[in-house]
Amino acid sequence: MGRGVVGTADAVVMPASTAEVATVMRWCYENEVPLTARGGGTGLAGGAIPVAGGIVIGFERLNRVRQFDPLLWRMHVEAGVTTGDVQRLARENGLRFPPDPGAAELSQIGGNIACNAGGPHAFKYGVTGHWVTGIEAVVPPGDVVTIGGPLRKDVAAYDLKSLLIGSEGTLGLVTAAWLRLLPAPEIELPVVGLYRDADAGISAIERVLGSGIVPAAVEYLDGETLRVSGDTYPFGLPADGAFMVITEADGAEAEARRVAGELAEALSDEAVAVHTPQSPAEVSALWRWRGGVAFAILAQRGGAFSEDIAVPLDRLRDVARETLAIGERNGVPSMSFGHAGDGNIHSTFLFAPDGDGEQERADDACRELFDLALSLGGSVTGEHGIGWLKRGQLERQLGPVGYDLHTRIKQAFDPKGLLNPGKKI
Amino acid sequence: MGRGVVGTADAVVMPASTAEVATVMRWCYENEVPLTARGGGTGLAGGAIPVAGGIVIGFERLNRVRQFDPLLWRMHVEAGVTTGDVQRLARENGLRFPPDPGAAELSQIGGNIACNAGGPHAFKYGVTGHWVTGIEAVVPPGDVVTIGGPLRKDVAAYDLKSLLIGSEGTLGLVTAAWLRLLPAPEIELPVVGLYRDADAGISAIERVLGSGIVPAAVEYLDGETLRVSGDTYPFGLPADGAFMVITEADGAEAEARRVAGELAEALSDEAVAVHTPQSPAEVSALWRWRGGVAFAILAQRGGAFSEDIAVPLDRLRDVARETLAIGERNGVPSMSFGHAGDGNIHSTFLFAPDGDGEQERADDACRELFDLALSLGGSVTGEHGIGWLKRGQLERQLGPVGYDLHTRIKQAFDPKGLLNPGKKI
Repeated sequence: MGRGVVGTADAVVMPASTAEVATVMRWCYENEVPLTARGGGTGLAGGAIPVAGGIVIGFERLNRVRQFDPLLWRMHVEAGVTTGDVQRLARENGLRFPPDPGAAELSQIGGNIACNAGGPHAFKYGVTGHWVTGIEAVVPPGDVVTIGGPLRKDVAAYDLKSLLIGSEGTLGLVTAAWLRLLPAPEIELPVVGLYRDADAGISAIERVLGSGIVPAAVEYLDGETLRVSGDTYPFGLPADGAFMVITEADGAEAEARRVAGELAEALSDEAVAVHTPQSPAEVSALWRWRGGVAFAILAQRGGAFSEDIAVPLDRLRDVARETLAIGERNGVPSMSFGHAGDGNIHSTFLFAPDGDGEQERADDACRELFDLALSLGGSVTGEHGIGWLKRGQLERQLGPVGYDLHTRIKQAFDPKGLLNPGKKI
Repeated sequence: MGRGVVGTADAVVMPASTAEVATVMRWCYENEVPLTARGGGTGLAGGAIPVAGGIVIGFERLNRVRQFDPLLWRMHVEAGVTTGDVQRLARENGLRFPPDPGAAELSQIGGNIACNAGGPHAFKYGVTGHWVTGIEAVVPPGDVVTIGGPLRKDVAAYDLKSLLIGSEGTLGLVTAAWLRLLPAPEIELPVVGLYRDADAGISAIERVLGSGIVPAAVEYLDGETLRVSGDTYPFGLPADGAFMVITEADGAEAEARRVAGELAEALSDEAVAVHTPQSPAEVSALWRWRGGVAFAILAQRGGAFSEDIAVPLDRLRDVARETLAIGERNGVPSMSFGHAGDGNIHSTFLFAPDGDGEQERADDACRELFDLALSLGGSVTGEHGIGWLKRGQLERQLGPVGYDLHTRIKQAFDPKGLLNPGKKI
């Protein structure tokens, strides 16, 4: 899904300890060599590409679970542990690490922290940063710092932890994290509504939000998305199902079943169909299908820019409608889907990489999309980050005062500008 | 509860708009005059005292609810609206603003954001910052900046919002905030366990955390706390009830009653008594009593230092035991109570303000308490902030690398050091 950004590292280093990470950064700082961190390499904004050359630092060998206290709902892991492994270890002990970015099996917790990754269940549970109580990091010129720890509350300092979370490797390198966990819900029960069009589907989302229920997830997939991915939908799509809303109830079984019934009720007006997967196998089939949608889309023409703008919830209709209009204006197929309850939508533009100017037109469409997000009071990125692909958008979003503060923070942490140069700007 | 810190403002200004706040700051910056923000004046760390003189800026007139969208779970308010008014307006519309600091009726949302205030229900719902999706602020030399808005997700910039939240008026002045709300729970059912001693009570807390339940609150009050406040406990204290644990189930009624039963079960081992207030009147009587404990304590000798250290959950026993030992060593009555599930404990030392060196001995006790918190891997403040009273502790907690970053951030925002001088250091 890239825009063809290429960068070549002069060297790749794979440290096995925090001290080695510090040594690498110190050497880079002394020798003025750029240093770009790479986690699982699954980022969607080109954040891990060494566009200025220099050293790429990988975290595969920093992969120990340093401590796990299931009874106290907490885990201390090194940055290279995959998010999937964190989720599994938690689950095996009756707990849950709620953040669930699409690439959880490949992405590392350090990378997910660097991007403050989200996922479908961020609606109820919040993004990665909500579950991090402390970090160990290496900051320029090569110092190790611990911020927080296994603490659930701490208001002593400025929130240095949140500053590093989501900083995309431009302020420091996270080497380990203390994670907060939750007791796992007994059951998760998705409830799916299908509608004839976006208007009916988005009205259903509004009814769900107004019903007093707190769903675990509120997703939508528009008609174009269903056209390219609906074939593999595990429960069969009705012919006139042209907009899908996925919600979920979770918790203790009896209560989750009651809430799922309320969700089905709230979704039913104007619905073509309402599905309630029942067995764990059906539930996981649904979410596996949902997770594969991005790949089904990519397979259509070989290339896709799948963005992740975020808008206030009352602007969902604008995003669904305007995504199609922008695609049409630029002559590229387009569609939208994503985390509707968070207003965080993957508006997507397809292209054939060797097509006649298609990629450029898809790129133009993205620019129009970012304009749309900003005109709606939104953000150009709700979960992927600015990286390289959205460079130049941040200043427009923040305005001059905010962007100046942003620049001064970068300067305060990384005065030589060697950490992931060209990113997050 | 102060340590007698005194500061005298040269002038007090009460702006009625964000533009007026900007004008005041610009004047201060041009004339090198210190500027100290004051919300409701209920802070417990002296953060609002103008120790360097200059201008005190009050927010009483910035008190409009700018927008309220109950169906979208959000409210946009100016900084001077009291937290109690936010809670009430939400509740009247079937919603809840979960942060519940003790002084909610007097404290303003701007002050609670400046301190990132907590409260008993932070255990399940998080502190104030978790519920803020955007802020409008004035930053030096007098510029208005909007960070975020009514957006549920945004990872574009460094987390400037979280940097201002909890910064105690030393980086900028929050003039308005976009708040996230939740549908209100149908019912809240506290479950109280009473024990012969701290060991039995803390074991009960550990059983609750290990039971797979997510309680809405997990509080404790030790024997000395009960001795001075137990007379007014609305359900009558058994003679041998010398340590109290308060938990709470919330949600839909049937489910909350089931969970309350499980909490009662988890609390019952070794318990002298387990109470489950039933009616809304009983529930609110319990929480009103809990809210009044700090005042009952203060009334004992006329003076009290009630601190708010936070520690990892496995160190609760150390805090309960060592608080008493520190009091004894320093010859002042002592006790502890607070937000056990968050490891955030109000260790308290009493003194008569005109007593023979009592206040100094209580102050020495606080210093020992901060040493204890740091030796346990904790924080010197979980919800009150550093303010003036804990100055000098931050550098010890952060260590040289973290403190240097902290200092550079202050410098980046407030190069002349005019915002709330002497605080948060």
